[in-house]
Amino acid sequence: MKEQEFLQELKEIQMLTEALGLLEWDSQTGMPEASSEFRGEVVGYLSGMAFERSVGPKVQEALAYFDTHTDELSEVGMSVYKKVKEEYELNHSIPAERMQAYNTALTNAHTAWLQARKSKDFNKMKAEIQTIIDFLKEFIPYWKKDEATNYDVLLNQYEPGLSVEKLDQIFEQLKIGIMEIRATIAEKGTVPRTDFLYRRVTKEQQRKFVSGIAEKIGYDFSRGRLDDTVHPFMLALNRTDARITTRWDENNFSMATFGVIHEAGHGIYEQSIDAKYDYTPLSTGASMGIHESQSLFNEIIIGSNKQFWKKQFPFFKECTEGTFDDIDFETFYDSLKETKASLVRIEADSLTYPLHIIIRYEIEKMIFNEDISVDELSQVWNDKYDEYLGIRPENDLEGIVQDVHWSGGSFGYFPSYALGYMYAAQLQHAMQKEIDVDNVLSSEDYSPIKNWLTQHIHQYGASRKPNQLILDATGEPLNPQYLIDYMKSIYYDVYKIKE
Amino acid sequence: MKEQEFLQELKEIQMLTEALGLLEWDSQTGMPEASSEFRGEVVGYLSGMAFERSVGPKVQEALAYFDTHTDELSEVGMSVYKKVKEEYELNHSIPAERMQAYNTALTNAHTAWLQARKSKDFNKMKAEIQTIIDFLKEFIPYWKKDEATNYDVLLNQYEPGLSVEKLDQIFEQLKIGIMEIRATIAEKGTVPRTDFLYRRVTKEQQRKFVSGIAEKIGYDFSRGRLDDTVHPFMLALNRTDARITTRWDENNFSMATFGVIHEAGHGIYEQSIDAKYDYTPLSTGASMGIHESQSLFNEIIIGSNKQFWKKQFPFFKECTEGTFDDIDFETFYDSLKETKASLVRIEADSLTYPLHIIIRYEIEKMIFNEDISVDELSQVWNDKYDEYLGIRPENDLEGIVQDVHWSGGSFGYFPSYALGYMYAAQLQHAMQKEIDVDNVLSSEDYSPIKNWLTQHIHQYGASRKPNQLILDATGEPLNPQYLIDYMKSIYYDVYKIKE
Repeated sequence: MKEQEFLQELKEIQMLTEALGLLEWDSQTGMPEASSEFRGEVVGYLSGMAFERSVGPKVQEALAYFDTHTDELSEVGMSVYKKVKEEYELNHSIPAERMQAYNTALTNAHTAWLQARKSKDFNKMKAEIQTIIDFLKEFIPYWKKDEATNYDVLLNQYEPGLSVEKLDQIFEQLKIGIMEIRATIAEKGTVPRTDFLYRRVTKEQQRKFVSGIAEKIGYDFSRGRLDDTVHPFMLALNRTDARITTRWDENNFSMATFGVIHEAGHGIYEQSIDAKYDYTPLSTGASMGIHESQSLFNEIIIGSNKQFWKKQFPFFKECTEGTFDDIDFETFYDSLKETKASLVRIEADSLTYPLHIIIRYEIEKMIFNEDISVDELSQVWNDKYDEYLGIRPENDLEGIVQDVHWSGGSFGYFPSYALGYMYAAQLQHAMQKEIDVDNVLSSEDYSPIKNWLTQHIHQYGASRKPNQLILDATGEPLNPQYLIDYMKSIYYDVYKIKE
Repeated sequence: MKEQEFLQELKEIQMLTEALGLLEWDSQTGMPEASSEFRGEVVGYLSGMAFERSVGPKVQEALAYFDTHTDELSEVGMSVYKKVKEEYELNHSIPAERMQAYNTALTNAHTAWLQARKSKDFNKMKAEIQTIIDFLKEFIPYWKKDEATNYDVLLNQYEPGLSVEKLDQIFEQLKIGIMEIRATIAEKGTVPRTDFLYRRVTKEQQRKFVSGIAEKIGYDFSRGRLDDTVHPFMLALNRTDARITTRWDENNFSMATFGVIHEAGHGIYEQSIDAKYDYTPLSTGASMGIHESQSLFNEIIIGSNKQFWKKQFPFFKECTEGTFDDIDFETFYDSLKETKASLVRIEADSLTYPLHIIIRYEIEKMIFNEDISVDELSQVWNDKYDEYLGIRPENDLEGIVQDVHWSGGSFGYFPSYALGYMYAAQLQHAMQKEIDVDNVLSSEDYSPIKNWLTQHIHQYGASRKPNQLILDATGEPLNPQYLIDYMKSIYYDVYKIKE
């Protein structure tokens, strides 16, 4: 077995994945509605083929051979080998027929979830969620290496190298920090004016503005495109084709504005991975958390920065053709950073968002480490919203059935979002030592920011672990204080609070 | 070998073809410009896989088995078997290394063609065209069965069952008929006014009009979509996903109007093939000529029909919001059917178009049956334009290098376009015996026309040969007189000629 042969096999798997990527993108952006049955067949066929190859004889042979011939691997080959080995062990440790039964359970759970949403009642999906939890509890011993608890195993599938012990401390600190900021705002803050945010801005006006912004912050449209969809996403076929999508609300321009800035961050990441990882499983992001750190760097670091908005306000006014002529810059800027407790995660502002994640994290931990019954979940969920955000869902649609993740088996995934927030703030703090971020965002040329992120994060693709990337880029492990400090500076300014 | 197993193999090949179809559609409609290299790799990989499967051991085994076990095949299975056998023999008879060398020659010829276009000089591609001709002359003996001449072999690859002997007679009759109509028009015709055709109609106004028209004539948007492209085409992934494309000229609405009507005809054909042929090579059109007959039925039969335009004129006026308020219906209608000699095939009107094809047919015959030298081709081309259309190209870009076909090895393909014209007129003549076409096109409901075409043509997919389809649908073999008569009625009306 030559490295070349191993890499060729991976390249072919990667090309199948690319074709699947386009089929998926098309399904979400404009596939004729009547063709979903045919589409399901071709996706099932190609993804089956890709999966079989990824655990097939060639990959097996390569893993066995290079296990004792690591000296024959190039540097890239070595990184690829490690990654493939990890993935193989994850995919291959579960008996095939149990995995198949699990996939059927996921399909049932998705159907039950849609039903539960319709009737706003978690009971409609309780049995199916129980089944998924049972499957995962059955699988965890297969996956487990040296993780301390069951939930550590799940957490590590999305954020390798992170532990419940560490995350408990981090989330505790973050929770206290956010709740203090919220208390101060409630006590002493001046609520910003926001009425004009809902003035009509046409889709074409919004598109002009957000495309311009996305390009300025480094998204390369010659290696991507912007399309309409229902649930926005970024999907990269490869580093020359990283597509972003958005939805538009003509009576709330901020949705697409921050949405596109966010997805552009994912896209810039994929566009900037080193070409030496082309056609390998390393040609993607390091983890969900690191990927979110890049989208959130755009959305909550750049997107909250006063100098950024000051610089772009004239362009915004030009695109909106007079609609905001009566609004001065300070009033406009403040309106973008209103904070308010809300029940629905995806509508939350940047200050309260991490609390939504912490609630889910605590519940997931209870499920896998304390064996809480699914009967209690809805009650626990509502109590936690009461406790942390001071509001209580009136039904399960506003509560526990709002997210698709659990019915999709994605337990351990939610923390990634909050990790992304914390990584983003920590990266900005490190960047600031070399680059005056305010200064760059006041200028015509934003490339120093993108270049810094490419140098420290993007280029490595999935060749380094999240904790290593953050340590190398910032000189210290994950530290939630940077996010707390950043939030404080932004929100105290907007709410006119002097410390 | 069970039929089920044979069909499963074909289904998998068909699914690879579907994925390739989407990749191709995407390349032509909006793929990020920088991603062509990656796209080339994945297309090369998947098309290689599809081709290998189509001549691979499973197909070979099935063909060998069913050769002596036809009794085990269902009716659909039998039709499929025959089609696969034909394709296998076509694909498999040429030695693999010669086919590979030919593909390289095609790539070189395409590059040379682009060069020849740039310098407007056929000499720049002469050597490469000679190479392709030499390859085809080498291949013809492998393909040849009972065809009379070399060129018959090529012709039959696009229109099975047609011979040079028959086509010579048909084209001679058609040529005389068209030239007589042109002479009469030149002598006695009143040229219609056309200046207002170039008034500005926005893309959105045009889109509203043509989408409405396409839907009315039977194109199902829930199983298709309309996108922008440079070179318009229809591409069907399957019968639930037959996509059409167009280009727009805001100063010439008729381009997209007739373009979309044309492509919609291809789309309706694919959408209407019987579901029993799903995932087999029969789930497509019977031939290039029959496919063109459906697009041209829309473009030149419906699209030339006065009652159709009378009915749609108010909708056209509504979509164009006052731009044509000063134009009465007769003037408008006449403008659409102006005829004028031109040098470029794809810009030709419906009366002169078949002459462009006949010129190419005659030259192709000379190349393969009379061994005319490529040195003479440009001269012969220009002389024929002089003779048949009374105009002479000033350079080869206006002449022999205008089409991509020859550099792509597609000798024998051009006649399909003219066959499409003649089939369309002959089908209308047959349809008229059962349906009052004018009456239907004056009404709100155009479905009787589409239903007739589905019943007689569409539903069969590629399970019947073109000559059989035409004979069954019209009660007689191909007869060019219907096209001549139809052209006469349309153009004499527009040019105010009384016989």
